[in-house]
Amino acid sequence: MCSSSFDKGFVVWLTGLPGSGKTTIARGVSEFLKRKNYRVEVLDGDWVRKTISAGVGFTREERRQHLLRVAWISRLLARNGVVVLCSFVSPYRDVREEVRRIVEEETPFIEVYVKCSIEECIRRDPKGLYKRALRGEIKNMTGIDDPYEPPLKPDIIVDTENLSVEENIAIVIDKLREIGLID
Amino acid sequence: MCSSSFDKGFVVWLTGLPGSGKTTIARGVSEFLKRKNYRVEVLDGDWVRKTISAGVGFTREERRQHLLRVAWISRLLARNGVVVLCSFVSPYRDVREEVRRIVEEETPFIEVYVKCSIEECIRRDPKGLYKRALRGEIKNMTGIDDPYEPPLKPDIIVDTENLSVEENIAIVIDKLREIGLID
Repeated sequence: MCSSSFDKGFVVWLTGLPGSGKTTIARGVSEFLKRKNYRVEVLDGDWVRKTISAGVGFTREERRQHLLRVAWISRLLARNGVVVLCSFVSPYRDVREEVRRIVEEETPFIEVYVKCSIEECIRRDPKGLYKRALRGEIKNMTGIDDPYEPPLKPDIIVDTENLSVEENIAIVIDKLREIGLID
Repeated sequence: MCSSSFDKGFVVWLTGLPGSGKTTIARGVSEFLKRKNYRVEVLDGDWVRKTISAGVGFTREERRQHLLRVAWISRLLARNGVVVLCSFVSPYRDVREEVRRIVEEETPFIEVYVKCSIEECIRRDPKGLYKRALRGEIKNMTGIDDPYEPPLKPDIIVDTENLSVEENIAIVIDKLREIGLID
């Protein structure tokens, strides 16, 4: 077993519009940290909806419940030494603050705002969700008929419209080093 | 950070009637393993209902959803080197099998049947739940108006009616050693 049993992990929470590139950045940071022998987990909406929140919808309260669950799970993992990269639209500022309060009772919480204009996200539309929302086939789509509230004071901002994936991954890693969370 | 990043944890699932002594045994095993520097988490109904399953009721399907969530979380923790002790009535055999299938895709799963007669559990009634169920104040109480299906082939059986807490904790620990999951 691991003898250095008092290492603490931390939680990196990536928020941004659907299609802004959150999971791509999370996976890039994860690959880097795994090469450095950190224990890392990437939690994202697809995974969570397949496992712990099967059947949960997209209303404001359902999204909230869903994210608070992720907060508790991330806290559990982080207090056992895992670096947890959470990639969720998480559109509401107050819910993100609830998430932060849950996590910060035990471990550091770093909010990353993945910035990208709605026009560019609609252009990318990796899952075809914007197209369907604009046709009225799905409701409560963030950026279309549900609001996205950008963080007021994120710990890190990455701009996926004007910088490359590699540059943005480096921004996150440099900041984690600067704060002293990684070597 | 922990350099031995490939250690795997495992999941010990304690099932039994309310009041049979599951959490007491889980906590005892946890204390022992922590002294040996294992990373350990005890997940039980009270904790889970306070955090990831707030507002979930006690119908058959609600209990199932609730336990499958615990299965996924335990798997996440265990694959990151944590020993997860889960203490849940988990009354239905088929749901426990679902839980086992989820966990065993990645990490070992040990089912512990915490055996105690319903008469003795009613006598102990640590949370006063049997009293309330017998008065008809709560419904779907396992052992009263909802069935408990004992495991057919548990990995470990502990008898809390005829053996002491210490003896039962030792039975679990000895078995984990015998299987080779702990040193």
